[in-house]
Amino acid sequence: MKTKETLNSLNPYVPGKPVADVLKEYGLTSAVKLASNENPYGYSKQVKETIVNGLDHLEIYPDGGAVQLKAALAKFYNLAPEQFLVGSGLDEVIQIVSRALLNTGDSIIIASPSFPQYAHHAVIEGATVKKVPVIADSGLMDLEGMLAAIDDTTKIIWLCNPNNPTGTYIKQNKIEEFLARVPEDVLVISDEAYYDYVTAEEQPTSLPFLEKYPNLMIMRTFSKAYGLAGIRVGYAIIPKDLGRFLDIARLPFNCHSLAQKAAITALKDQDFVAFSQKENKIEREKWEAFLEDLGLHYYHTETNFIFFDTKQDDKTITQELLSKGFIIRGGLKPGWLRVTIGKKNDNLRIQDELKQILG
Amino acid sequence: MKTKETLNSLNPYVPGKPVADVLKEYGLTSAVKLASNENPYGYSKQVKETIVNGLDHLEIYPDGGAVQLKAALAKFYNLAPEQFLVGSGLDEVIQIVSRALLNTGDSIIIASPSFPQYAHHAVIEGATVKKVPVIADSGLMDLEGMLAAIDDTTKIIWLCNPNNPTGTYIKQNKIEEFLARVPEDVLVISDEAYYDYVTAEEQPTSLPFLEKYPNLMIMRTFSKAYGLAGIRVGYAIIPKDLGRFLDIARLPFNCHSLAQKAAITALKDQDFVAFSQKENKIEREKWEAFLEDLGLHYYHTETNFIFFDTKQDDKTITQELLSKGFIIRGGLKPGWLRVTIGKKNDNLRIQDELKQILG
Repeated sequence: MKTKETLNSLNPYVPGKPVADVLKEYGLTSAVKLASNENPYGYSKQVKETIVNGLDHLEIYPDGGAVQLKAALAKFYNLAPEQFLVGSGLDEVIQIVSRALLNTGDSIIIASPSFPQYAHHAVIEGATVKKVPVIADSGLMDLEGMLAAIDDTTKIIWLCNPNNPTGTYIKQNKIEEFLARVPEDVLVISDEAYYDYVTAEEQPTSLPFLEKYPNLMIMRTFSKAYGLAGIRVGYAIIPKDLGRFLDIARLPFNCHSLAQKAAITALKDQDFVAFSQKENKIEREKWEAFLEDLGLHYYHTETNFIFFDTKQDDKTITQELLSKGFIIRGGLKPGWLRVTIGKKNDNLRIQDELKQILG
Repeated sequence: MKTKETLNSLNPYVPGKPVADVLKEYGLTSAVKLASNENPYGYSKQVKETIVNGLDHLEIYPDGGAVQLKAALAKFYNLAPEQFLVGSGLDEVIQIVSRALLNTGDSIIIASPSFPQYAHHAVIEGATVKKVPVIADSGLMDLEGMLAAIDDTTKIIWLCNPNNPTGTYIKQNKIEEFLARVPEDVLVISDEAYYDYVTAEEQPTSLPFLEKYPNLMIMRTFSKAYGLAGIRVGYAIIPKDLGRFLDIARLPFNCHSLAQKAAITALKDQDFVAFSQKENKIEREKWEAFLEDLGLHYYHTETNFIFFDTKQDDKTITQELLSKGFIIRGGLKPGWLRVTIGKKNDNLRIQDELKQILG
């Protein structure tokens, strides 16, 4: 059987190793996963209760329209329910949008490095991916470079804000300047998956510009600060004229019943989100101080991970840390590592290990 | 923003109305959904326990490789774990396969009527859909007609077996005769979503032919007899050389953690499946007797639904039943209704209602 030619240049996603596998492989008694930017503080106890109390009638298909979840989101943002697209995690939202919009001959513009799934889905659809390197010093997206890359083939510009893996963000005034210069028929997608971890005064969200720029879409997730990565639920605030088409490209029952219920409760428990944000900030500042002490180049992060230059082979170090029970992410940029901000003790332990490895 | 032209001929899926909506809309105190072939006996109590006990660490991403679930399936079928593709329901499996294989200029062959999602995804991918009508008398798929429809553009033949919405099945010897005549480079997909409801002695599964025909793929689900439609989990037994490509087209964390755990337990509780099958058979035979009495043309069903010709306008009758609190499926074939086999009392009530409506 012949598969699509567009798949030939792609590889399946390689996720961070599960803790159980690492324990077994290296004969360890403990290991910690700091590879996938998961929330080390777990998730809301209220969500757990909601799931326990929501187990009747799992034989019934989920509400494909996610009516109650969209109503809750609409209330939270003071927007209309029709402005939301709910997905089985943002991965699925990226897939839906790519599949609904992209043809052979189209192109997308992304920062490099950025979240790899934007490019993955564009390539499957036969579209071209234009990568604009981030500014080396600051890790900031090169917005001028991205604007310069726009041409007649451009369908989507992906702004990951804050950006994964750099952790850096675009300030609000820069976002608006950017939006003002993008042609109306190009969709700008602001992926704000890590927004809930931002503590900078000038919030890097595109929310205030929704009304003025009908070609703006914003993505948010329950997988990070809300701590619900395991049950897959994310959403987008979408341009109104796209709703019908995104629904055609969306699976009829894409977001399962427990995820919808859990998300509604999670949205109500903002104390948990605030707690996660606060603890993360304390530990993130210690990470920056640690890297400062070591004299290593890092990008100031507003997320729950940190990206820094070891000036050594990142794959060797990733492997060495793995053998000690620390699962982190290398392979993103030569020499650089991305480490999730963990809990206090785990951070101290991996920092000790890093200090030894890096001499 | 311009969306893909292939979407223009399509509509978003319209699901059966939720019970709550029908109660509200028609001012009823009770309503029953017999539109989506859900299991009226619920799901396994053991699965409920598994979920309650599996709520720790939902902040961790699911195992994208579904290692434990694939191991359980491999054991159940006495096959290798690599032969399985796990999806967020079979809807997603259909999407993954269509997206990995189909290009503009390709075609698929399906029976008509059959499950609409095969065609939906093919059209999104720009492929042509060749529909071969089922044999009017018996509701059986016209296998000769489907073979005759094969040409150089054919990439996939979808056999829904038993077929939704006809409820009919292809006997095993006919399946093999069919497979023997399909070119090796055409993928034959046997969608056996309703297989667990089959009680016919000659089981309509393509399982025995997996080794002999490497272009055969089989789909099974936890949404029907296992009663887990709400949490989305289905799987396919796939040709080995397709695994890598299907994984490229699959979302990295497509099947959520609770679904994977639930499916492993569900697979162990075969008593629940056997119970569902037994109760369904008793009620299904009463349905056939009822339609016999009324002199209505129906197709003998081996599933948990029944398809019959009212000889009146199916949309009017669907609407009339809705106003009485019975949610069923019309609009599939002029005059015909598809009704899920419910519990004893619900079946008696809708049959009474139907008798009155049809005079």
